[in-house]
Amino acid sequence: MNELALVEAIRGYTARPGRDKSLIASIGDDCAILRPRPGEDLLLTTDFVIEDVHFRRRAHATAAVAIGWKAMARSLSDIAAMGGTPRYALVSLALAPWTTAAYVRGLYRGMTRLAEAHSVRIIGGDISASPKLTLDVIAIGSVPKGKALRRDTARPGDILYVTGPLGRASAAGYHDQPNPRVALGRKLLGKATACMDLSDSLTLDLHRLAKASGVAASLDPLLPAAPGATLENVLFGGEDYELLCALPPAARPPRFLTRVGHLQKGAPGALTFAGASLPPRGWLR
Amino acid sequence: MNELALVEAIRGYTARPGRDKSLIASIGDDCAILRPRPGEDLLLTTDFVIEDVHFRRRAHATAAVAIGWKAMARSLSDIAAMGGTPRYALVSLALAPWTTAAYVRGLYRGMTRLAEAHSVRIIGGDISASPKLTLDVIAIGSVPKGKALRRDTARPGDILYVTGPLGRASAAGYHDQPNPRVALGRKLLGKATACMDLSDSLTLDLHRLAKASGVAASLDPLLPAAPGATLENVLFGGEDYELLCALPPAARPPRFLTRVGHLQKGAPGALTFAGASLPPRGWLR
Repeated sequence: MNELALVEAIRGYTARPGRDKSLIASIGDDCAILRPRPGEDLLLTTDFVIEDVHFRRRAHATAAVAIGWKAMARSLSDIAAMGGTPRYALVSLALAPWTTAAYVRGLYRGMTRLAEAHSVRIIGGDISASPKLTLDVIAIGSVPKGKALRRDTARPGDILYVTGPLGRASAAGYHDQPNPRVALGRKLLGKATACMDLSDSLTLDLHRLAKASGVAASLDPLLPAAPGATLENVLFGGEDYELLCALPPAARPPRFLTRVGHLQKGAPGALTFAGASLPPRGWLR
Repeated sequence: MNELALVEAIRGYTARPGRDKSLIASIGDDCAILRPRPGEDLLLTTDFVIEDVHFRRRAHATAAVAIGWKAMARSLSDIAAMGGTPRYALVSLALAPWTTAAYVRGLYRGMTRLAEAHSVRIIGGDISASPKLTLDVIAIGSVPKGKALRRDTARPGDILYVTGPLGRASAAGYHDQPNPRVALGRKLLGKATACMDLSDSLTLDLHRLAKASGVAASLDPLLPAAPGATLENVLFGGEDYELLCALPPAARPPRFLTRVGHLQKGAPGALTFAGASLPPRGWLR
């Protein structure tokens, strides 16, 4: 399949009915054109999904759908982590020699299935070649002006929560289709003092949040584990894509949150668990 | 070099003094946060630069600077092609096993050198691994509301122009540091009926502009060639990154433009040269 034909096919996979007054031009020109709405800040994020780094090659189209879904999920989860509403995506795709037209269709089916569930439009991208199939999904979201949930704004004394049980993905060998916590992230706007998504591991991501906020963190002895997940999965397993957030100690937490620890004065980023120091560790991707 | 250290290093390479009221958060959180200015549309584009597709591996740091420059140039050229002002970039970087910390520093030196010349800030990105060094540069630009130069708005009778001689990059074996035509693109706002950048070749990119606008195109017999460039280089060589634009027949062209042909009614995208039909061809990347 040559590039001109592929671009035509992709335009077909990503076409969606409905009028969006903020989208002035989409796939097919040098750039996509967006008209921002007043009163909103824009969120921008980008995440790679690369063969043999984030997934193993399985050439059937069902696998392609799962990989497309996960690639979109990683980027939408970053928007969710800031309390934003994902709105658009650009997809850069470097095809490996083994990828067929049917496989590419599967990738887009997976990406658009999740994108459409969140009313996200794919509005641009690039196509190239690589020995390993490479996706780079850029997500653009919006959030009320000045309200984005950051990771550098937590305070000593804040209580730490997560939006669901942990260790699920690593216990299952990472063969899952994560659901980015977009609705829950929005519910944390104006409540959480800081928030991020758990992509690499509870310890590694909490280390980052604590370091960015200039505080230390202490994990509770009893942590919410997904069915079948070991403590190793909970502490060090990645790709859960739950949200980790901090709330002031006096705040009443929404019911969808489960407590996992608290923040305190101390060496920025230092973690303790069951009274002992805990080195952050996870699957860096 | 582990990822945490690399992110710290990159934050250092990309730090710039000066206050930008539109940039609320940059590298280090889940997303970058931008506050759009009223009266502006936003332009978004993304372009891969991949080892053995866009460049050959030469491990010395001077080569890294040139590759970083070219990666940034490709994306800024897309902004220029719409008459926009580039403002921010996100850089996704998948490191090959052979890339050293010094090489990564060279890549960023090349990217930031060109970025700073255009007051563009690198505000985010992703880091991963791949057998081949892979860069994906996402550029964000702004343009006065409704004024972006598109490729689907040319009309039959319009005269075609370019911003400089062609075939330079292909005649030189693509070992050059292209300068995106940002200032010239802005001067075409309100003048050109359509515009795009010449990345793949004059014939292939003109085919796209004509097809998008639903018109045919005829190239002049005498075309502006760079020193040393053959007619083959001019018609089919890529990576010139000059702008190709259409102006109404009655318009007086600015002095920086050179005429290359005209548009006419006919099969959308059809090209003629010296009276004969010409198949579009170029280096698709």
